[in-house]
Amino acid sequence: MTEHPGAGAGEQSQHPGQHMSAEIAEQPAVFDGLLTDRSALTEVARRIAERGPRFAMLAARGSSDHAAIYAKYLVEVLLQLPAGLVSPSSTTLYGAQPDLTDVLLISVSQSGGSPDLLEVTETARRNGATTVAVTNNPGSALNTAAEMSVDIGAGTEQAVAATKTYGATLLTLYLLIDAIRGGSAEHALRLPELANRTLAPSEELDEAVRRYRFADRVLTTGRGYSSATASEAALKLAETSYLSARSYSGADLLHGPVAAVDTETAVLALCSSGKGGAAMKEVLETVHERGAEICAIGSAASTVPCAHAVDLPESAEEVAPVLEVLPVQRLALALALERGEDPDRPRGLNKVTRTR
Amino acid sequence: MTEHPGAGAGEQSQHPGQHMSAEIAEQPAVFDGLLTDRSALTEVARRIAERGPRFAMLAARGSSDHAAIYAKYLVEVLLQLPAGLVSPSSTTLYGAQPDLTDVLLISVSQSGGSPDLLEVTETARRNGATTVAVTNNPGSALNTAAEMSVDIGAGTEQAVAATKTYGATLLTLYLLIDAIRGGSAEHALRLPELANRTLAPSEELDEAVRRYRFADRVLTTGRGYSSATASEAALKLAETSYLSARSYSGADLLHGPVAAVDTETAVLALCSSGKGGAAMKEVLETVHERGAEICAIGSAASTVPCAHAVDLPESAEEVAPVLEVLPVQRLALALALERGEDPDRPRGLNKVTRTR
Repeated sequence: MTEHPGAGAGEQSQHPGQHMSAEIAEQPAVFDGLLTDRSALTEVARRIAERGPRFAMLAARGSSDHAAIYAKYLVEVLLQLPAGLVSPSSTTLYGAQPDLTDVLLISVSQSGGSPDLLEVTETARRNGATTVAVTNNPGSALNTAAEMSVDIGAGTEQAVAATKTYGATLLTLYLLIDAIRGGSAEHALRLPELANRTLAPSEELDEAVRRYRFADRVLTTGRGYSSATASEAALKLAETSYLSARSYSGADLLHGPVAAVDTETAVLALCSSGKGGAAMKEVLETVHERGAEICAIGSAASTVPCAHAVDLPESAEEVAPVLEVLPVQRLALALALERGEDPDRPRGLNKVTRTR
Repeated sequence: MTEHPGAGAGEQSQHPGQHMSAEIAEQPAVFDGLLTDRSALTEVARRIAERGPRFAMLAARGSSDHAAIYAKYLVEVLLQLPAGLVSPSSTTLYGAQPDLTDVLLISVSQSGGSPDLLEVTETARRNGATTVAVTNNPGSALNTAAEMSVDIGAGTEQAVAATKTYGATLLTLYLLIDAIRGGSAEHALRLPELANRTLAPSEELDEAVRRYRFADRVLTTGRGYSSATASEAALKLAETSYLSARSYSGADLLHGPVAAVDTETAVLALCSSGKGGAAMKEVLETVHERGAEICAIGSAASTVPCAHAVDLPESAEEVAPVLEVLPVQRLALALALERGEDPDRPRGLNKVTRTR
């Protein structure tokens, strides 16, 4: 069920994970493309800024919902606007029709084909919101439903598990939100180069794959911007390797779920330099004391208690999720292959999920 | 670490689960108390309505965060206001200071003692928000920080796992939001009686306990209002029985996580009469086809494909979560006891969790 010809596991893989592997590797080039031509995005940002929105809502499902978590932090911290994630059911099931004057709605969907996001966006536009679609498909219904739209420019994605569209969505949202405040994307300019370095062979990552070969319980965690990466990591591991993976913000983890952490628990922790990564130290000390094995990923990975650290190049914290997700995607890919699965075609999944 | 003398597992249990068991059973009386004396709550609601807020934000952690998910639907559907859940890190880590004029902030915490909620509430009040604390501790710091406050009136909770404070928080939030729109609580009036009926011995529930004795992977799911109950169910099972339990909205489940569902997966599905429960049918058909064992709980449990159904009395959908959580709490209690754990004192947990 795809929106445009050629997308969505349309072409047969020659070998398992071929598409996912190629698409992970394409990301530095995709980032470079997004940074090189920003004129359309800048124009959309200018129009949004002109409206002076007072409140932002983000609508998304699946991986795009994790990109929306990242964008919520960006809106709150960089634009200093209160922001919320849309619960589509309020509209699609219960028919809510709130007055959305002064509200900016950003609808995020790689395919632009989710019926629920379409309905949410149409309803919001009718009720006064400034609506923007962020998709990988300029011809999608969502692009038409929204007043404005931004293309994430990732090109066709063949693997069912989203990788390059996720990275491209994060960067697009960063560029859009930074441009709304009149920024010049300075923190993002080095991302193509840093992404290339991040994708170099990594003995630490290979070690994580070996150690997770028979893992069943994985808990992912991060704080602030990186809580988005933790959510995406849990989904990616569940959908490609069928692990029982669940994600908690570092803060929520200490409110109850830590009781379920024991020596059988593999903990994947996102720890990038900055305030979010620093706040993870206390959380991980508690988790470490409970005997869990921690694999830390990020530019501050070596500073937290962990069994092994996957170090990443340093970047501004607000763009770290664009890099952090790369080793997460490689881990999901390699682990699926180790376990004899084909991450290009996970059981039971379609590229576009149709829910209302 | 408790806020007021006598609370928080302060008294020794005579036998495991004694406090949790007693506190679950107290809920019909707690609900009755809340319904009987609504004058203070009605006055707070009147003052909020007078301000005419245009957006609502909800701040909470842990179980209270699930009550906040429920309240977000109530605000969106009953008050027709856009609403969002606060990401405390935006304030506590990144120092966001958005202009919150016309914003209603509802801060939900049984203890009123979370430092991060305190900081979020103080900052929001300084920045123009109308602030309301919903707590079980009228003398708490959060009550002082917020301009107005509402007492959930559940009395001291001894067990670390929140039960009666969760049910009381749900009902308080319903009564508050209904009163803001000038409602007369009509859908809630029968809840004490219905809660009593819900707490009667149940062979179906006993059967679920037996079948989950050796379960490891539990997935909980619900849609709309009941997605809050699904989240609370996952937390309650994780913190009392140390299960690897994770919750998805029925819609998100089909976006990826369904790949990890197999014959080893126990699925706990909340299905109450109304639009949310009706929308679960399609989701559960897919889950059922994948061989998962489904236990459905709710007044529409018998209408979905499932291995066993725990039927509940009929209520308006918007108050169903107040009833739905009762069998969930009993399941968590009974399962913990079956597994030789003491749910009054889960390993590694304190009653008040201090995160920033």
